[in-house]
Amino acid sequence: MQRRHDIGSNNDKISHIIPGFHAVKEALLEALIRIDELWITDRKRSSRVNEILQIAEKRGIPVFFKKNHILDNLLPGISHQGILALAEDFTYFNLDYLISVSSNTPGHGLIIAADHITDEGNLGALIRTAVFFGVHGLILPKDRSAKVTEKVRKRSSGAYLHLPVARVVNLGRSLDVLNKKGFWIIGAAEESPDSIYQFDWNRDLILVLGSEDRGLSLSVRSRCHQMVSIPSYGDLGSLNISVAGGIILSEIVRQRSAEKGM
Amino acid sequence: MQRRHDIGSNNDKISHIIPGFHAVKEALLEALIRIDELWITDRKRSSRVNEILQIAEKRGIPVFFKKNHILDNLLPGISHQGILALAEDFTYFNLDYLISVSSNTPGHGLIIAADHITDEGNLGALIRTAVFFGVHGLILPKDRSAKVTEKVRKRSSGAYLHLPVARVVNLGRSLDVLNKKGFWIIGAAEESPDSIYQFDWNRDLILVLGSEDRGLSLSVRSRCHQMVSIPSYGDLGSLNISVAGGIILSEIVRQRSAEKGM
Repeated sequence: MQRRHDIGSNNDKISHIIPGFHAVKEALLEALIRIDELWITDRKRSSRVNEILQIAEKRGIPVFFKKNHILDNLLPGISHQGILALAEDFTYFNLDYLISVSSNTPGHGLIIAADHITDEGNLGALIRTAVFFGVHGLILPKDRSAKVTEKVRKRSSGAYLHLPVARVVNLGRSLDVLNKKGFWIIGAAEESPDSIYQFDWNRDLILVLGSEDRGLSLSVRSRCHQMVSIPSYGDLGSLNISVAGGIILSEIVRQRSAEKGM
Repeated sequence: MQRRHDIGSNNDKISHIIPGFHAVKEALLEALIRIDELWITDRKRSSRVNEILQIAEKRGIPVFFKKNHILDNLLPGISHQGILALAEDFTYFNLDYLISVSSNTPGHGLIIAADHITDEGNLGALIRTAVFFGVHGLILPKDRSAKVTEKVRKRSSGAYLHLPVARVVNLGRSLDVLNKKGFWIIGAAEESPDSIYQFDWNRDLILVLGSEDRGLSLSVRSRCHQMVSIPSYGDLGSLNISVAGGIILSEIVRQRSAEKGM
């Protein structure tokens, strides 16, 4: 999967692809990483493309016009909207961008935060699952957390291209920002008596998953509006964090689809 | 986790523990592996214990009487019923044993089969998830499938002690046996239009999960009463097999609990 999405003759200098209009614009404006090239399909000349061309010109980034099928072949199954950027490294976004993505579905905003997941395999599987269920973004703390490394991207089976990831210095403060924007902060905690099946997920929310070793940190717990748990059979055992994340996301999407009568 | 459940001075000769009355009796009668010792708490002298003592005597297996807290400490959180066997290796059971376990909850029998899962990490996570949701047994084909190796047992976080696993030569024929016993054979297949949320899981059933590469084999598909899929968001991406298994098991248990008014 990795080879299909990365460009470059050797592993030392792989270019990372950022697909889609909003993500490309955000990457250009944020300038957290170096953008090497812009590719735009020759069919597209809307005002929003012109806006991007202006930013690229100011920043001295070369723009290449490509046939649409070249982008299709490079990014099979991915909605690239006729535009992509080649970046020097995996691109993190800021929290505001995640919030703006989730605001496209008012009342059904869905962001997840990983409260110090250190295992790269688990993080990759979580990203894959998040994309499957249409999560709007993922928040990772900068310290004591796995990053979106090459191993994580591989384990995500290419899904990382679809999910904006923000790295934040202080997860607690990010939750405060989300709280002020009207998000419910829901923590997954084994010991909570409140079942994920009983909770009403039809609201803008951020789901916080704890680390496998320690669960949710105190700083996160104190900010949660609600803690929920997956009921186990006879109190036996526990779940892998990426499996637990998948089960909760499945329940969220099930309830939201039922509300819409799907 | 592994060290807590295995006994032995070095890794070359680890003894594997079989906890609980039924599993010990089955292991003694099946004789697929060598049983080295029986441990019984000195409080227990019921007729079913006497039955086991007679079998052990016939087979020349030494029996040791232990204080209950020694078994508790060895198997924290595990319902050992005051009896365990030390075996030379991980113990597989036969299909009939899995069926007899599931018959304890008529109408809610739940067995899973892995149609050629080769990744040991995925198999370990699946066992862990199966135990969490109270699955009665797991069926693995003998060929082209991961076995319950030490790595799998580790990745299951000790859950393998709770789940009878059967290895079968021909998965299709095992499904035929289960069909005759009244089990519904339900296959998980990405392309099925029937959602796991719409299907009525309140019946004795075997859930068959396909391999990540090939999905369900033709031999399995032809025997399924129903195929189901997890609806994805906008047809993006796919799920890790252990995550998919967890999501379907969660939905099964959710529906069954709702039926019971829990």
